[in-house]
Order: sequence, then structure tokens, then C-alpha cells
Amino acid sequence: MRVVRTEGEMTRLSLVWRDRGLRVGFVPTMGALHAGHLSLVDAARETCDRVVVSIFVNPTQFGKNEDLSKYPRDLQGDCRLLEERGVSAVFAPDNDVIYPEGFSTTVSVSGVSSGLCGEYRPGHFQGVATVCAVLFGIVRPHAAVFGMKDAQQLAVIRRMVRDLRLEPEIIAAPIVREHDGLAMSSRNAYLSPEERRQAPAISRGLNKVRMLRLNGEMDPAVLKAGFLSEVEPMNLLKVQYVEVVDHLTMAPLEKVTDKALMAVAVYAGATRLIDNIIIEPEA
Amino acid sequence: MRVVRTEGEMTRLSLVWRDRGLRVGFVPTMGALHAGHLSLVDAARETCDRVVVSIFVNPTQFGKNEDLSKYPRDLQGDCRLLEERGVSAVFAPDNDVIYPEGFSTTVSVSGVSSGLCGEYRPGHFQGVATVCAVLFGIVRPHAAVFGMKDAQQLAVIRRMVRDLRLEPEIIAAPIVREHDGLAMSSRNAYLSPEERRQAPAISRGLNKVRMLRLNGEMDPAVLKAGFLSEVEPMNLLKVQYVEVVDHLTMAPLEKVTDKALMAVAVYAGATRLIDNIIIEPEA
Repeated sequence: MRVVRTEGEMTRLSLVWRDRGLRVGFVPTMGALHAGHLSLVDAARETCDRVVVSIFVNPTQFGKNEDLSKYPRDLQGDCRLLEERGVSAVFAPDNDVIYPEGFSTTVSVSGVSSGLCGEYRPGHFQGVATVCAVLFGIVRPHAAVFGMKDAQQLAVIRRMVRDLRLEPEIIAAPIVREHDGLAMSSRNAYLSPEERRQAPAISRGLNKVRMLRLNGEMDPAVLKAGFLSEVEPMNLLKVQYVEVVDHLTMAPLEKVTDKALMAVAVYAGATRLIDNIIIEPEA
Repeated sequence: MRVVRTEGEMTRLSLVWRDRGLRVGFVPTMGALHAGHLSLVDAARETCDRVVVSIFVNPTQFGKNEDLSKYPRDLQGDCRLLEERGVSAVFAPDNDVIYPEGFSTTVSVSGVSSGLCGEYRPGHFQGVATVCAVLFGIVRPHAAVFGMKDAQQLAVIRRMVRDLRLEPEIIAAPIVREHDGLAMSSRNAYLSPEERRQAPAISRGLNKVRMLRLNGEMDPAVLKAGFLSEVEPMNLLKVQYVEVVDHLTMAPLEKVTDKALMAVAVYAGATRLIDNIIIEPEA
């Protein structure tokens, strides 16, 4: 497995593979890898001959009061995991490789970026869209894999790729959960033991909503109440938002008929956790 | 010469050429072609095996009170000129080919977009950058040619391509002028006979500045005054801006030492004309 630090080496490597007719898969990450990330690698390997994983904690997607400086970093440990998983190259650029002096372009996606996390993290999705466009330009993948845990991010990237006619096929990989249902996240490492004990109420709440929907419930207010009934009893959890939206456009729904998405953000102490579930009329 | 209306056909055509090892050149235009555009085609043919010209009057780069509705259109005449010039394909998409329903992505370039035309045409360069990113995605060119008459546009595109690591090499082609010096523009068709008679004062003014610089003048105020001395006597011409800027960043200069750009926008009656000249300490 190659660990690549420069743009030139990364692009050349990918172009050599492409010239040989190999399909290049790409998994962009911010490192601090867990089983969720590794499942993205597996999804890439399923359809691709070579897999590149980027590890770059992108400053432009963090807000002023967010956790950029304390975001967990462990390049050596990450590389060990990725090598075992059959990754061909890790692209771990410094900040000035991605954003060289004079960099001044931003990619914004309206609509899908509004509401949900977009409301509470202004500029976040612009940072995500821009860095992904840059990474696609450097890595030149045929396919890129994104996790469904970041449902709005996935929608933003899909929209951007479609609008700008970028090359990579976007592959969505299902949420990976701990044994007790908590969605895997690098930020779970921030949780105190008691916060960690209470956090699975989030996925319990989402599962409850899924069952309510399967039983015919179509009213977003009732579905939201179902979620809250699991989470609100937990004294360390504080709901930031709970919404039922169209699963592609992220637009809020007044009545839930077809496939939809319930997306939530919940603070466990000072740690912000997101989760979501696809809800459908039939299993 | 193929006239292509759909995205799918355009991309397939380009990919077939690319697979055969042919270098694809691209000239984006808004039609109403003149000798300036044809020189861009020639520049593309110099280094490319196939040349695609797009003809698309892009609504998003026009301001509310600008000339979108009356912008000159002549697809048949344009195609005749391009066929004679050895163009392989004309891409003439409808609006909803470029911007299908749900389109919601914008590309913005800060810095180089500020000042000059950016100050008087808010949103213009965002429209230009976005449509060029989309067209590059559809046409998949190895190289794209832009005219130096739109100097700030060229700087914006160069910056975007560099930042987003887009594939095409950007080629700049010199300004083509009428026999009396007026820079070729589709908008020259709007000029009344008397406006047309006065308009060459713009290029005379720029040439005067070039001579002042060659004679050692380094003060932007004196250079601007040189330009104005030619243009202000013309009763139908009204200067919108005249600036001396860095030729790459478009940043205003306090003292002109190295290669620089004088860029101007001048109204001839109701018609807005732009022009510019590279000024250097030595010929």
C-alpha cells in the first residue's frame, strides 16, 4: 500500500491505473477510521480494481466553534487498518496540498444543503462540496463511496456530481452500528461512559419510527414524537433537530407516503451525533 | 460537422475521440460569431485533433437589466462559419440540457472575480464559472480556448481550473480587432453608425497607455489619464471603469513595474464595450 502525500504522485498513480484499464474507487475520509469507514472500503472494492482512501481533516467544513483542533487523528493506525483491508493507496495530503496559495474557488449546492445540518452548520456543506470536487480532481476515480450516515452530505455530493457532470459514480454504503445500535462515528470517541450508555436511545428512537411507519403512520409530527419518546428521557441527550424529509432532495415532508428519511442530530453532552433511517410504507 | 443538441451525444462523441487517442479542443461561445471567435477555433486546431464549439447564450451570466433577450443569435450562420473553419462538432444545447430540473450547484471564484467587471456585473462570473464547469464536464476537452478580450473571465477560468483540478489546459488567444482598432465583439452589432465611429477611441486610448508605459511611466493615475485623454472627447462614450491590475490576479496596482493589464469598460450609447491591453516596461 502506497502512502501518497503529493498531488502529482496521486494523480499520476491513478492515471497509470486508468491507462491499464483498471477501475479506480475512492473513499474520502477525515481519518480516525472505524468499522463504518472500512465498510466503505469494502463497497469500493466490490466494484473497483484499485481503492484509494484519502485522509484529510478538511478545515473548511468545520465551523468556528466546532472541533477541528481536537478532531481525532491517527494516521499510523488508520494506515494499518487500510492495508489489511486491501487498499492500494492512502492519500494523506497536508492542507497546502489541497489548498495551495491563492486557492479561491468554492462549490455551493443550494436546496439539498438547506435545513437539517445545513441550518446548524453554516458553510459546512460548501466546505464538503468544494473539498470533494478538489479530491475528485486529484484522485480521478471512476467511483466514490459515501456513507449513508451523513445522509445530507450524500445528497449534496450526488447533486454536485450530477450538476457539474463530474465523472465518479457515487456509491452509497449503509450505516454501520455498534452492537447496541449506536451509529459508528469518529466522534463517539468523545463520549463519556454515561453519555455512551445513553446514546443508543437515538437508534432505538429511529427504529421505533420505522415500526410506526410500517404500521401505517403518515404524520411527521407523530413520527417525530415517537423518536422523542425514546430520547427525551435521557438526561444527557439533547435533540438539535428531528425531521422527516424526502430522501433525495432533503425537503421536509408534510405527509409521509413514499420512501422518506428521518434525520436527527442529538447532542450527547458536548458531542454532536447524527443518525438517520430510511422509512418506508412496507418492509 | 456534427450539430449536437444533447448531453449524451456530446459526451459520447468526445469519449470516442479520446479513446482513439485524439486530442479534443473546446471553444465555448455564446454564438453570434465573428473573426475573434474564429481565431479561438484556429488556436484550438493548432494543438488539437478535434475541435468542439459550444453555442449557448447562458442566462445565468446576464444581470437583470442586461441584454439576454436581445443578445444576437444566428445558429445557421454560425454553423456555416464553423464548418468552413474545420470544426468537428457544434454543441448547441437548449437551456434545460445545461440546467436540468433540480440543478442547484454554483461555482464561485473569489479574488479574481472582484473589481473590474465583477463590480458592475454582480453574479456574472459565478454564472460564467458554473457554466464552464458544466460544459467541461459534458465536452470533456483536453484543452479549452478563451479570448484575452475577456481578461477577467480568462483569469477566473484559469483560477477555477487550477483550484478544482479540472482537466482542460486553458489556452489564451489574443484580441482580434477591426481595421480601426475596435476589439471584435458580438455586441458591436448594437452600435449606431456614430457610436461605431467613436468607439475606436477606446483602443487608441489603450495604445497610448502602452506607449506611455514603454516610455517609463509607472503611475497608474498618469496611465489612466492617458487613456481618458482619448476617450473623454467622444460625446457618445462614457467610461465605466479604467484600471491597471496584475495580469493574473486582477488586483489593482499602486505602481506599475512588471507586466500589467489595463482593463476598461466603456459605454458607447447604451452598449457596454470592454477592452484591455497588456502593458510592459519593454516591447
